[in-house]
Amino acid sequence: MARAPARAVNLNEFEEMPMNAPVRTPRRLESYVCGAWTPGQNEGPALLDAATGAPVAFIDSSGLDFADILEHGRKVAGPKLRDMSFHDRAGMLKALGLALMARKEEFYTESFRTGATRADGWVDIEGGIGTMLTFASKGRRELPNTRVLTEGDIEVLSQDGSFLAQHILTPLHGVAVHINAFNFPVWGMLEKIAPTLLAGVPCVVKPASQTAYLTELVVRRIIETGILPEGALQLICGSVGDLLDHVTGQDAVTFTGSAGVGRKLKSHPAIVTNSTRFTMEADSLNASILGSDAVAGTPEFDLFVKEVAREMTSKAGQKCTAIRRIIAPRAQVQALVEALRDRLGNTALGLPAAEGTRMGPLASLDQRQEVRERIRDLQTVAEIVAGNPDEVRVSSGDGAAGAFLNPVLLYADKPFAADAVHEVEAFGPVSTLLPYDSLAEAVELARMGKGSLVASVFTDDKAVAEQVVLGAAPWHGRVLIGNRLTAKTSTGHGSPLAGLIHGGPGRAGGGEEMGGIRGVKHFMQRTAVQGAPRLLSAVTGRWIEGAEVQHGVHPFRKSLAELTIGDQLITAARKVTLEDVEHFAHFTGDTFYAHMDEAAAKANPFFDDRVAHGYLVASFAAGLFVEPNPGPVLANYGVDNLRFLTPVYFGDSLQVRLTCKEINPRANADHGEVRWDCQVTNQNGAVVAQYDVLTMVAKQWPAAA
Amino acid sequence: MARAPARAVNLNEFEEMPMNAPVRTPRRLESYVCGAWTPGQNEGPALLDAATGAPVAFIDSSGLDFADILEHGRKVAGPKLRDMSFHDRAGMLKALGLALMARKEEFYTESFRTGATRADGWVDIEGGIGTMLTFASKGRRELPNTRVLTEGDIEVLSQDGSFLAQHILTPLHGVAVHINAFNFPVWGMLEKIAPTLLAGVPCVVKPASQTAYLTELVVRRIIETGILPEGALQLICGSVGDLLDHVTGQDAVTFTGSAGVGRKLKSHPAIVTNSTRFTMEADSLNASILGSDAVAGTPEFDLFVKEVAREMTSKAGQKCTAIRRIIAPRAQVQALVEALRDRLGNTALGLPAAEGTRMGPLASLDQRQEVRERIRDLQTVAEIVAGNPDEVRVSSGDGAAGAFLNPVLLYADKPFAADAVHEVEAFGPVSTLLPYDSLAEAVELARMGKGSLVASVFTDDKAVAEQVVLGAAPWHGRVLIGNRLTAKTSTGHGSPLAGLIHGGPGRAGGGEEMGGIRGVKHFMQRTAVQGAPRLLSAVTGRWIEGAEVQHGVHPFRKSLAELTIGDQLITAARKVTLEDVEHFAHFTGDTFYAHMDEAAAKANPFFDDRVAHGYLVASFAAGLFVEPNPGPVLANYGVDNLRFLTPVYFGDSLQVRLTCKEINPRANADHGEVRWDCQVTNQNGAVVAQYDVLTMVAKQWPAAA
Repeated sequence: MARAPARAVNLNEFEEMPMNAPVRTPRRLESYVCGAWTPGQNEGPALLDAATGAPVAFIDSSGLDFADILEHGRKVAGPKLRDMSFHDRAGMLKALGLALMARKEEFYTESFRTGATRADGWVDIEGGIGTMLTFASKGRRELPNTRVLTEGDIEVLSQDGSFLAQHILTPLHGVAVHINAFNFPVWGMLEKIAPTLLAGVPCVVKPASQTAYLTELVVRRIIETGILPEGALQLICGSVGDLLDHVTGQDAVTFTGSAGVGRKLKSHPAIVTNSTRFTMEADSLNASILGSDAVAGTPEFDLFVKEVAREMTSKAGQKCTAIRRIIAPRAQVQALVEALRDRLGNTALGLPAAEGTRMGPLASLDQRQEVRERIRDLQTVAEIVAGNPDEVRVSSGDGAAGAFLNPVLLYADKPFAADAVHEVEAFGPVSTLLPYDSLAEAVELARMGKGSLVASVFTDDKAVAEQVVLGAAPWHGRVLIGNRLTAKTSTGHGSPLAGLIHGGPGRAGGGEEMGGIRGVKHFMQRTAVQGAPRLLSAVTGRWIEGAEVQHGVHPFRKSLAELTIGDQLITAARKVTLEDVEHFAHFTGDTFYAHMDEAAAKANPFFDDRVAHGYLVASFAAGLFVEPNPGPVLANYGVDNLRFLTPVYFGDSLQVRLTCKEINPRANADHGEVRWDCQVTNQNGAVVAQYDVLTMVAKQWPAAA
Repeated sequence: MARAPARAVNLNEFEEMPMNAPVRTPRRLESYVCGAWTPGQNEGPALLDAATGAPVAFIDSSGLDFADILEHGRKVAGPKLRDMSFHDRAGMLKALGLALMARKEEFYTESFRTGATRADGWVDIEGGIGTMLTFASKGRRELPNTRVLTEGDIEVLSQDGSFLAQHILTPLHGVAVHINAFNFPVWGMLEKIAPTLLAGVPCVVKPASQTAYLTELVVRRIIETGILPEGALQLICGSVGDLLDHVTGQDAVTFTGSAGVGRKLKSHPAIVTNSTRFTMEADSLNASILGSDAVAGTPEFDLFVKEVAREMTSKAGQKCTAIRRIIAPRAQVQALVEALRDRLGNTALGLPAAEGTRMGPLASLDQRQEVRERIRDLQTVAEIVAGNPDEVRVSSGDGAAGAFLNPVLLYADKPFAADAVHEVEAFGPVSTLLPYDSLAEAVELARMGKGSLVASVFTDDKAVAEQVVLGAAPWHGRVLIGNRLTAKTSTGHGSPLAGLIHGGPGRAGGGEEMGGIRGVKHFMQRTAVQGAPRLLSAVTGRWIEGAEVQHGVHPFRKSLAELTIGDQLITAARKVTLEDVEHFAHFTGDTFYAHMDEAAAKANPFFDDRVAHGYLVASFAAGLFVEPNPGPVLANYGVDNLRFLTPVYFGDSLQVRLTCKEINPRANADHGEVRWDCQVTNQNGAVVAQYDVLTMVAKQWPAAA
């Protein structure tokens, strides 16, 4: 792909670099706060290239006024974001995602310095941008084009229907503070700001220092685009100082990182006192289970080996979702160790940007030291069966200067006694193999992680899948089943996806991120609104049974410009005869006995006599409400929640009440969706059918030239 | 209503008492733990009758093994509850609710001792039982008859449909610890255990000591029924000791009570370390707003006066949802004060069981002392305009012995400077009137409560309702609109309802209770499951596009006993002709131009030519898939999610693929619901229509004698 066109921007000593350029002038990172790029008062510590140890940047946030930063987001950006509809915000995210995608090569170049290979960078950069684009798409497809979101059905609170309730969601009036981990400096930010912005809430992002230079670069590009309203995204490079002292009940804080820090933040007095929403994604000792059916020689065995090796080595194992515990039938242990030893031994460790490198260094020498210590903890209950943590073999680069670590596989023969394996996270290319003697044991071992982001099971057996998935589910936010049918299409054990919950219970922090629109709601307040239909309808912007209606011109003659909620048509009545039913039966072929055979119909527990077809009722209803001439209603594209509530007997007379319920103009089209409440009653006023009719309606009629 | 029949039970010194009996032998409360009623090692402190000061009971939990209690719930009851389906559990709740309702008079008698009048007791006792019955009903109507709950649509993760995901919810494997407040000893327990048990999770209830004797009595009656599996409900009367030290990530803790205690619990090391789910419902300075349109003389003004007076005096104002801040147009203040002074002055304060009593005492003399101190706090910024906190006027009882307090109304002329009004909760018949000069000010004042359980607005003006509700919503879990139309049917400002969220952000604790099935999910883990359709389908028990299918006998010939997920019918094809469409148009009356007029159809942006009616397609489809003879399929009661995806032109040939997707046998009927995936394709294999057909199917066929 072509490089993004160069733009004239103030990049503060930042210069474009050729690919793989090993050295450049280290720059001082700046925070983007209160509308300006702002350096710290001091130079701050140096951040070093993971592979070479060369300084990349200096980071410091001293002197920032953190209370002001929150207030800037709340006062300057909040009202602007809330004034946009969901589709407006989705359009904003789409534009931003596309703008970032066009600049991705620049991000890859910077990403190498973090130790990420191109493949690692793909997950971070294109995975992050893709997540933003998915939220943009979901926002348009799954949310209405409104500012207020309704959730669930109307709750009828009085027998006469005069008192109802509807749950609504409205954006929080605060800011979301996103405190992120070092391993995914781009994805970590984008997967959080996308649902937040879609909800209508401004963000303050605080990346982990170690790799903040990449986040800072991406934020520079975001701000340059001018796509976001000022204040919708602020960035703090360095410590957050006393920022958390200033959060309120309208703010939200998310944290991704170590459990120790997470617990401290969660217990922060301001967060506790104000019930500030707090989401945490912390340690996770994710398990992958080889099914009892997946013996050596099966496709599932081979897929398992590949997946485990990939998860151990991608991003050098620095992923919250990496496989830390490999759970396999005891009889397969030998074959597995051999296969994994082979694969891991062939993983070229070297400079991230170098040709042929399969795994880059850890993020820093400190990180490597930490991982080596955790391996020693694991060695108290497990033996190393592949790799040597104290010996570095590199295919390129300087093994002494960079934070290189070859993969290490351990084996714990007594997994139920191997506490350290279920407690200690070595955040690198390290995993421990645990044998099981029954599937129940496999499930129990997975649970011993005390809550994880993800588990996987490799099996082609339905019963194995059911037992393992349902057994593991309460301890996991995501469970992946791998088998031969998904060998090519599986997104893999380690990949969180925008549409799926990311987060796990217990040790994993108890948070829920993404999960599609669920993740958007995290930044909104859910409120039950009670009242009379007419006032409730005014609040939600949707017509509700009992709310005001307007009669006059046939509502199918109105364009979106003219149509209003509550526009209603009451049709003439039409009698349904025995001849109609017999005719319809023979015409369509639907000669079900309840329509055709009096004795048989009477024997049916639901009918007193022969009844009209439900589809006949709906067809006659359409005949009653349709306006035949060309007009703004372009098509009936569907029907929702159709229920046949009262049998229609011969001689019954049908009448339709059609009411405009919901109007969703599309941002980029000449039309929009209109949902109509359709109620068909009989001569006694009993509702025989109730449903929503879905139509496409032109914005203007006659269509604008 | 007749008294419940007396039953031979071990009530530990408890004797049936005549109504209003002022004295009886105080009993030692027991805890119901690990399958046995267990007294504390000591007698413990005495709990006093709120109105007479006579001792009612002694409470003590010393000597209990709290770790054992949790483990008993997890090991003994958890598996039994999880083995039941949602409908099984709903049936259990219904039986329990009905059994308790039959014993309600006994509860009322005990309730008087807490200071509750009959009307107060109704909210607590019948409100609590009603909440349980509502959850029972929602469980049957809104949940499938399964053990695993699916949520949301299938997420398609690969273009070829071979890799999909589905979110599921499974019960936590721990217990829910419910720590409750003194004011609703029955409702407080039942509103929490109902959704918990419906989720399949055992409960440990710890009522506030002051009124624990009523909770204990209800739990005795619950245990006696034998309806719950052993361990599903345990009760701790007295301190919870070190119980919280033993909670895990599979447990949940809920707390209702003072913010100070709540914060301590929320920060408890075990809760923080294990990410134990924690829900809190704490202080709340709920506001009620008189709309700018609702001037003296309007029905809304009168309703507002009634509601404020009722909320101040019902339960002697000891409700988390009571109106603490009365927000009204400055011009209405004088009229309001007069009207309220009048109403409050006429509120007969006396013995809870006495004829004519409108308000009972506070729960204890300590509580009264506390409320008087808080009134003094409020007096620093507001003046008393009705009532005198230091003078007791009773209509019955001994004003010196009981915790009596007449209603107190305050007025703060400068509400934006009256910090104490927005900070201090006087948990009694106390409220402060605040004037506003614009509706924006009214909203701002409501927000100054920093998060409340509920707000209300009295208005008959749509614009006022919209501005106030949407303005207040982010700070509230519930907002009620009162107007003339709901005067008779409104459930009132102060009543949480089973179907609606109860809980508010910020100061109110940030929790969400009830809210219908939402409240059930709080005790379940949400997990995204990914995999091939056939394995995913095995996990969820629902047929998924791409999962295995079985052909053979027409699936409409199979009873629920024979039918399985994936049973499929592929019909013959049927051509749609111009004659069919014209015939259908004239027969039904649906002569929409896109079916009838070639030139007009071609001008439509969605069609290339005249098209067949969507209802014709669905009708022909039914003709193709229906089995005409009497059989186990009894009725087609509806259609869901019908989408017309490709236009059907004349000469196109339709074919239907009908697949059994979901089977829901009803517990108490000879039939159940079966959902069929219905896909209509044309001669090119393009899907022209996709929908779910909903049928009632007999459990046996021929029907059992």
